[in-house]
Amino acid sequence: MARVSQAHLDARRRQILDGAALCFARNGFHATSMQDVLKEVDLSAGAVYRYFTGKEELIGAIVTEVLAVLRETYEQAAVETPPPLPDVLVPRALERLRQTRPGVMVDGTWVFPRLMIQVWAEILRNDELKAVVRTGYEGVVSAWRRVVESYRSAGLISADADADAMARVMIALAQGFAAQLAVIGEVSEEMLGDGVRALMGMVDPRTRS
Amino acid sequence: MARVSQAHLDARRRQILDGAALCFARNGFHATSMQDVLKEVDLSAGAVYRYFTGKEELIGAIVTEVLAVLRETYEQAAVETPPPLPDVLVPRALERLRQTRPGVMVDGTWVFPRLMIQVWAEILRNDELKAVVRTGYEGVVSAWRRVVESYRSAGLISADADADAMARVMIALAQGFAAQLAVIGEVSEEMLGDGVRALMGMVDPRTRS
Repeated sequence: MARVSQAHLDARRRQILDGAALCFARNGFHATSMQDVLKEVDLSAGAVYRYFTGKEELIGAIVTEVLAVLRETYEQAAVETPPPLPDVLVPRALERLRQTRPGVMVDGTWVFPRLMIQVWAEILRNDELKAVVRTGYEGVVSAWRRVVESYRSAGLISADADADAMARVMIALAQGFAAQLAVIGEVSEEMLGDGVRALMGMVDPRTRS
Repeated sequence: MARVSQAHLDARRRQILDGAALCFARNGFHATSMQDVLKEVDLSAGAVYRYFTGKEELIGAIVTEVLAVLRETYEQAAVETPPPLPDVLVPRALERLRQTRPGVMVDGTWVFPRLMIQVWAEILRNDELKAVVRTGYEGVVSAWRRVVESYRSAGLISADADADAMARVMIALAQGFAAQLAVIGEVSEEMLGDGVRALMGMVDPRTRS
């Protein structure tokens, strides 16, 4: 039997994950069968089940990978000097996802935002998936808190700013923006950066001395 | 035949919309039948179809009403002096929704964020609903742009801040926060205000003179 290289195994795994992500983005998790995934990736059941036991494991792997990319993006940002400001970092996180998942495109459109909506809808009735997302999400929140602490060390935010609240607001920005991309589609990452910069540049008359 | 007062008609319409919203929030639009809605509101088919022709009209009315509440909240804010800052206004919009839809509660939990996720998922496959949401969304963006112009008149943002980008970012904040409420549930409106205030209070070294 021919030896199979690790690179081949990795590429095959990537191919399966991207095909499954396309199916889930298109029709949702619930309405997608393993047959749909096999058809999408054009592989036999044996080839696919060698990597994943089923739909649950596929969606879990996809979500875990996405949240890990976000976490790493923010962890790297936290140790940059100076730390990248939110109007740079939030669009960068979306850009990073786009780069690491180039396979998840349909007719030139990046379908990740659709996938995100489908995952959220599925979480409402799937406690197992909810637990996977919660674990990954905690990692992302924790990485963003480190970015906020880095802002604080650099004197960019006030001493009493709430790091946890700011972390969750920054994540909400990315989530809400991706939701607009998925359901309305009129927004761009440049617009996201411009809007965040305008917000950061506001004068707060309550703290004016 | 007894005359039926307008107040009675309005209350009945409200009862049907809230019951339908509960069903959609719980199981999604696709998996909810008109039978489920009739059972939820405990009315006959004749009583319900007097108000709504079916599921499509129900979800359209619910979404239009929610987006109208948001639009009015921002239109009122735009003419306040001074205009309420984003850390006050974004939580206020969520609070306003909570107040105007008191019927949409399950075991003391506000299910609107779940409903929002279900609507987004449905939009991905329902162009009719997408058109309804797009119209309402444009109204909300336009109202938020007026708030931004009001900030500009009051000298609270820079002369060249992009009003449209800022409007969409403020809406993304509310959307992302509601998504976190629905799928993770660890966040509060107070946290939203604190995080937005921290972001507004950031120092931008690029513009420091």
